[in-house]
Amino acid sequence: MTIVNAYAAHETGGLLKPFQYQLPPIGAYEVDIQVQHCGICHSDLSLLENAWGVTQYPFVPGHEIVGTVLAVGQDVVHLKEGDRVGLGWHSAYCLHCDQCLTGNHNMCYSAQATIVGRHGGFADIVRAKVPSVVKLPDSVDMRTAGPLLCGGITVFNPLIQFNILPTAKVGVIGIGGLGHIAVQILQAWGCEVTAFTSSESKIEEALKMGANKTLNSRDSEELKSAENSFDLILSTVNVELDWSTYLSLLKPKGRLHLLGVVLEPLNLSVSSLLSRQKSVSASPVGSPNAIAQMLEFCQRHNIKPITQHFPLKEVNEAMEHLRAGKARYRVVLDMN
Amino acid sequence: MTIVNAYAAHETGGLLKPFQYQLPPIGAYEVDIQVQHCGICHSDLSLLENAWGVTQYPFVPGHEIVGTVLAVGQDVVHLKEGDRVGLGWHSAYCLHCDQCLTGNHNMCYSAQATIVGRHGGFADIVRAKVPSVVKLPDSVDMRTAGPLLCGGITVFNPLIQFNILPTAKVGVIGIGGLGHIAVQILQAWGCEVTAFTSSESKIEEALKMGANKTLNSRDSEELKSAENSFDLILSTVNVELDWSTYLSLLKPKGRLHLLGVVLEPLNLSVSSLLSRQKSVSASPVGSPNAIAQMLEFCQRHNIKPITQHFPLKEVNEAMEHLRAGKARYRVVLDMN
Repeated sequence: MTIVNAYAAHETGGLLKPFQYQLPPIGAYEVDIQVQHCGICHSDLSLLENAWGVTQYPFVPGHEIVGTVLAVGQDVVHLKEGDRVGLGWHSAYCLHCDQCLTGNHNMCYSAQATIVGRHGGFADIVRAKVPSVVKLPDSVDMRTAGPLLCGGITVFNPLIQFNILPTAKVGVIGIGGLGHIAVQILQAWGCEVTAFTSSESKIEEALKMGANKTLNSRDSEELKSAENSFDLILSTVNVELDWSTYLSLLKPKGRLHLLGVVLEPLNLSVSSLLSRQKSVSASPVGSPNAIAQMLEFCQRHNIKPITQHFPLKEVNEAMEHLRAGKARYRVVLDMN
Repeated sequence: MTIVNAYAAHETGGLLKPFQYQLPPIGAYEVDIQVQHCGICHSDLSLLENAWGVTQYPFVPGHEIVGTVLAVGQDVVHLKEGDRVGLGWHSAYCLHCDQCLTGNHNMCYSAQATIVGRHGGFADIVRAKVPSVVKLPDSVDMRTAGPLLCGGITVFNPLIQFNILPTAKVGVIGIGGLGHIAVQILQAWGCEVTAFTSSESKIEEALKMGANKTLNSRDSEELKSAENSFDLILSTVNVELDWSTYLSLLKPKGRLHLLGVVLEPLNLSVSSLLSRQKSVSASPVGSPNAIAQMLEFCQRHNIKPITQHFPLKEVNEAMEHLRAGKARYRVVLDMN
């Protein structure tokens, strides 16, 4: 019998408190992971506060998990005890729907999110179904790899979904948990990268991460000077912006792609799309295969999230650090 | 000296009256077309009424033009007197910008619209610059070909822009001037075609045009039954619809593509795009090369706009017929 020692909230926005739960016998396609590190994503906070209306309590956050395989079900063949693995937003797929069958597991109609109706990685152990558990490249830095499993794949996936070439000029809105990984990946991808940030203090750092230039997202004159210059703009923020302005910064056939869950509706004029064949789109994380490609790419290009670490028992301080906008750039919980 | 006999409006929404103007000597890359037929597009009406704020008076509408070459400038080599040609929304491109150089002339920054700051095809003669003048396939039916030059290319272009395969399930919103051509093209393209219409009387006709099925765009129950079933939805209407409902009808990675100039802003929730990686986009007409491909495709598949004809001197009656929503499906002016 496996007992999991986790931290859970018992009410909307509540403090995370030690919480034990028992796992049933392991299923044929299941994997138990001994958690070593777990990144904290803004959606952990959103779910803690039930901002999307789907949170179930007791709620154990955590879906940027790295660790080692503790146990595998009898039909698991691609992982064995001791393997170093990662687990992200999804922890189970149906494997039978048209999306799973075409490699788009992240859009599986029955995909289970690691922290919706299940218990996440703010814990010593987490259980998931293959193939959501992804083997990590041998030389990966376990301490900083967690944020790649959700933040990293979220910004990487559009590059393969939309066949982005290294000739592309790409803007990244928001240099935070997702954006700071996006800038690094895009630089390695060969693109010209522009970081949009409203934070003076992040300008220098964005350039160090690999941005070719920065633009002040609150300076409308500065934005106007960049009209018609981007093939792709990735927005990583979850607040409403003047989307029409960003559309005007796109070249013909350009795409504004949203990765942050903005609750306010997009208010777009059709003409801002029509005259130059522009697109607006959004996407959720990525498939297991995309995650594997991303991990390999990041390892080969030595791309690492910039992390700040808290021990698990200081989880509430860690959440507060994120809530207060102090994360530079991703907060990670260390289990030991 | 060439005198053009046209019909022009002299004020916003005014009646079209006989209007003569004189053409300067023909330029090296210019072509004069003896107009035989000219389709009437909804944007002729929008410009007559200055709905987009760009109309210059006297205003000669008409940008779905077929006719024969009357004269060519000294450097025109791909056309000669007597050739049967078509001219659509654009009548001049810069040929030097990045869009012209990549075959996207329809997004040329200095493209000139046939009826904005120039005089259009409600006339015996119209002048344009190569390569906006496209040679028609030999066996084309001149009488019905006009509407292909704007309406036809507008619905055809997205299929090549987005690499739509014959396996795609495509919806067409609005069975009018554009939509009735879209249904025919998509059927020939090998797609499963669904016509969305709110007009009972058009259901039977849409099926005859090649639609595999129809859905009542005003019946929310009927729409709900089609959730998650389209790869692409082309909207040809210029009125506001419940776009979120149409997004819900798209499969994962599906695209809602707008071809009508809707003046009301799109009011979209990010989550309706994000969870299944959907896109919203729009595009204007097509390049000369796309027009040539479209004409060849339509000729090979015997696709013809369904037209109603008025002689040029009844141009005001023809415009009123369109304004009253009586066009079935495209009104064409015959010059002789």
